[in-house]
Amino acid sequence: MENKIITISREFGSGGRYIGRLVAEKLGIPFYDKEIIAKVAKETGLAHEYIEKKGEYSPSKSMFAYGFVVRNTMGESLEDHLHAIQQKIILELAAESSCVIIGRCADYILKDHPKRLNVFIHSTPEDKIKRIQTYLGGENEATAKRMMRDMDKKRSINYNYYTDQKWGDVRNYSLSLNSGELGCDRCVDLIVHASEVL
Amino acid sequence: MENKIITISREFGSGGRYIGRLVAEKLGIPFYDKEIIAKVAKETGLAHEYIEKKGEYSPSKSMFAYGFVVRNTMGESLEDHLHAIQQKIILELAAESSCVIIGRCADYILKDHPKRLNVFIHSTPEDKIKRIQTYLGGENEATAKRMMRDMDKKRSINYNYYTDQKWGDVRNYSLSLNSGELGCDRCVDLIVHASEVL
Repeated sequence: MENKIITISREFGSGGRYIGRLVAEKLGIPFYDKEIIAKVAKETGLAHEYIEKKGEYSPSKSMFAYGFVVRNTMGESLEDHLHAIQQKIILELAAESSCVIIGRCADYILKDHPKRLNVFIHSTPEDKIKRIQTYLGGENEATAKRMMRDMDKKRSINYNYYTDQKWGDVRNYSLSLNSGELGCDRCVDLIVHASEVL
Repeated sequence: MENKIITISREFGSGGRYIGRLVAEKLGIPFYDKEIIAKVAKETGLAHEYIEKKGEYSPSKSMFAYGFVVRNTMGESLEDHLHAIQQKIILELAAESSCVIIGRCADYILKDHPKRLNVFIHSTPEDKIKRIQTYLGGENEATAKRMMRDMDKKRSINYNYYTDQKWGDVRNYSLSLNSGELGCDRCVDLIVHASEVL
């Protein structure tokens, strides 16, 4: 029987990670977010911080701006190499067992998987700013607003570069939920119910 | 107590109308789609066919192309007048009782309503083409494909013209569902469950 995979893409501050963890708990299946970073670190020898920064937030704007890229003998930039390893690990995890995977273009990487549900979590700016201030190190409203804009811009650049799709385009996803309007717990229930289709 | 309003926007051929009718039946509340046409006809004296065509599919491309528009003494084009009446009727219906309303920019018209759930139904091209061939007069695959493209293009022109939002942008909606992946019956259940938040 094919493993059931739930991928969760999310706006920064929308609670998507929290929702994904609860979905995995309810379904009794592994949850992969930062766990992927450790696996990539083990395979590449790169520092956790570098992988965390570049795994979802590269290619950096500066790379486009200046055009200087370090490439290996395969012609790959370090960022492309990291993404190739990350992709391999996501495919291995999906082959291993049913699971929930957060971000990292997993919806695209697993688009041909026969049993996958792609979820997008978004929210209202007010709700995201509040969550960023409470949980994600946004010291004050101005910092939180800047973080909200910057992180989503970087995620979107990363996604659009490593896939041929557009980040946050409704058509990429099986279901898209506004966590600010629906509440995180209801989002969890809706995803669990939707996943019964797999 | 405020009425609970569910607006359903949908891609042509996605089964959104069918899903909306079942949601209304399950919740025991009125369902408004073509019923709105009859009300607009009564108020304006315009023909049903004209309202059906222009209520969701105007301004026409030809209007942009040639720039000829008939305007009344208020400076309104006939299309704008129809939309103003349609908007008034949607606001009246929402004030009257809880209900499900299909299309017609209702999500935008009712965006300040305290208890509204905005739903977007989309689907895979294969699923939509099949449904258009079976239920919506798409004689063969080529006709169905053309209808799918044309109707959504017109809906999107209409929506983008009469609102300051972009049709099908995930951020306009409380939840967006892929009916081809999830199945229409599951979409109905998910919307009913989500509507409990109201």
